[in-house]
Amino acid sequence: VTRLLPSWRDGAARDSLLRFLAEAEQVAPAERVAIFDNDGTLWCEKPEYPQLTFFVRELERAAAVQPALTARAKYRAVLQRDERALAALGIGRVALALLELFEGLGPEEFDLRVHRFFAEERHPKFRVRYGDLIYVPMLELITALRQKRFDVFIGTAGGADFVRAVSMSLYGTPPERVVGSRVVYRVERRGDRLELVRTAELDGDPIEGVAKLPGIQRQVGRRPIFAAGNSPGDAEMIEYTTSGNGPTLGLIVDHDDAAREYAYTSEAGTFTAAEGILDTAQRLGWTVASMRDDWVTVFG
Amino acid sequence: VTRLLPSWRDGAARDSLLRFLAEAEQVAPAERVAIFDNDGTLWCEKPEYPQLTFFVRELERAAAVQPALTARAKYRAVLQRDERALAALGIGRVALALLELFEGLGPEEFDLRVHRFFAEERHPKFRVRYGDLIYVPMLELITALRQKRFDVFIGTAGGADFVRAVSMSLYGTPPERVVGSRVVYRVERRGDRLELVRTAELDGDPIEGVAKLPGIQRQVGRRPIFAAGNSPGDAEMIEYTTSGNGPTLGLIVDHDDAAREYAYTSEAGTFTAAEGILDTAQRLGWTVASMRDDWVTVFG
Repeated sequence: VTRLLPSWRDGAARDSLLRFLAEAEQVAPAERVAIFDNDGTLWCEKPEYPQLTFFVRELERAAAVQPALTARAKYRAVLQRDERALAALGIGRVALALLELFEGLGPEEFDLRVHRFFAEERHPKFRVRYGDLIYVPMLELITALRQKRFDVFIGTAGGADFVRAVSMSLYGTPPERVVGSRVVYRVERRGDRLELVRTAELDGDPIEGVAKLPGIQRQVGRRPIFAAGNSPGDAEMIEYTTSGNGPTLGLIVDHDDAAREYAYTSEAGTFTAAEGILDTAQRLGWTVASMRDDWVTVFG
Repeated sequence: VTRLLPSWRDGAARDSLLRFLAEAEQVAPAERVAIFDNDGTLWCEKPEYPQLTFFVRELERAAAVQPALTARAKYRAVLQRDERALAALGIGRVALALLELFEGLGPEEFDLRVHRFFAEERHPKFRVRYGDLIYVPMLELITALRQKRFDVFIGTAGGADFVRAVSMSLYGTPPERVVGSRVVYRVERRGDRLELVRTAELDGDPIEGVAKLPGIQRQVGRRPIFAAGNSPGDAEMIEYTTSGNGPTLGLIVDHDDAAREYAYTSEAGTFTAAEGILDTAQRLGWTVASMRDDWVTVFG
């Protein structure tokens, strides 16, 4: 018999997951819905969000053929990796400016660019492709949930289109099971074809904090009974999940492993929360996975 | 060997479907996406949309305990089945007013009301439950597509929540594979629980006509290669589908069977289109299924 969750060390976190997996058998299969935050919960988000690195690479390519782009303050700050200017501008405004690079692209063309990024780019610390920086214990958890007939969703502040381009190959999760931040598309007639093209405008709020809840209702249409995250931006998603009836579980990944990954605490107040996520987890009785103590391996 | 599509008579429509099913084997499985309009394409939409009947029943229940509701002109027109007043008000504005009946409900409570409707209500002409008024030939088509590893979606101007409450039991389609019109939800703290509650405000455009395209991108995240509809409100969805590369198919259900269902043409201009859907189908080379000539049976 193979051991369930083999990359999880014996301990409170593993016990809690196994207990929940057993309890979930009493839940109607249609209600077995699990949702995972992505950045810092399924894949490595340091030293910066992979999507930001993708945006930077796209900006570099664009600036190489269109040098006038470097005159723009936000783009110059990105190209020069000017941390002070970037901090002053704020990541939200910088990201919005970078969205303009993709204006006019169709979904298929955008996908190709994301695929190129995952095929070519290597992480600055680990020197491997980003697709190799998925947490193995979390993949095992996804597999264990699927064995219990869970439908597994992703709920991310990252771009829905960015994550959907790789969600099937990385997680076995099809695009319609990814809840993410979105851009507005407009419809364009090109010759005898009807096409969708990207604008640089956000479609509603980024899927972060309290906005994850209506995002889940829109895309998933069911309340999860399992939710995992790692930052204050995941708190409401997990609280909504554990407010349901019957067995539920909230899981927090604690990045306390400087040797194998990074040691950091997602700051309280990054988005909206005033409380640190480990404090929230303790207050509400969620399970905390210590990367250092609970995981036998981190990456594959 | 069992015959594929047994309720489809030999003829051009059946040939076209079988040819497409064979061609789709060359398409990468991740791109095998099919989408069906719901009202008039999968279930009977006459003499009125089932969702409208559901709204009327809910209004009657509410008015029985709260007679003041009958003083409101839009509600009085609905309760008295005053066709002239309803036509003058327009179905859109009436539907918006009826959405107020569900303000403050959680998703689970709304689902229960939809389930009650499908359990209790009988169709005025056929005297059976609405769940028994699904077109058998279309269910067979869904099955045949799934056998070819298609992911099957629904794209409807009807309420996403209304259709999702029954999409799994009627079509084997989970909620995340239903693209529909949505209401705005707000987040409410109730005691120590975090809950979503309905408002009466529409979240974006109804998923009809050209709005089906961004709706598909948001919810499906992939361009379908098969699309079926029955009215001018489905034209853009089908045109977007058949604008893709590789084998594609657009299918129109023609309601020409007064004996077994209804004979009617979805009027040009109901929503945005100026052209009748049969004319569009002929102009763009879509397949037309005549209910009278192509279907051996209509309902189960």
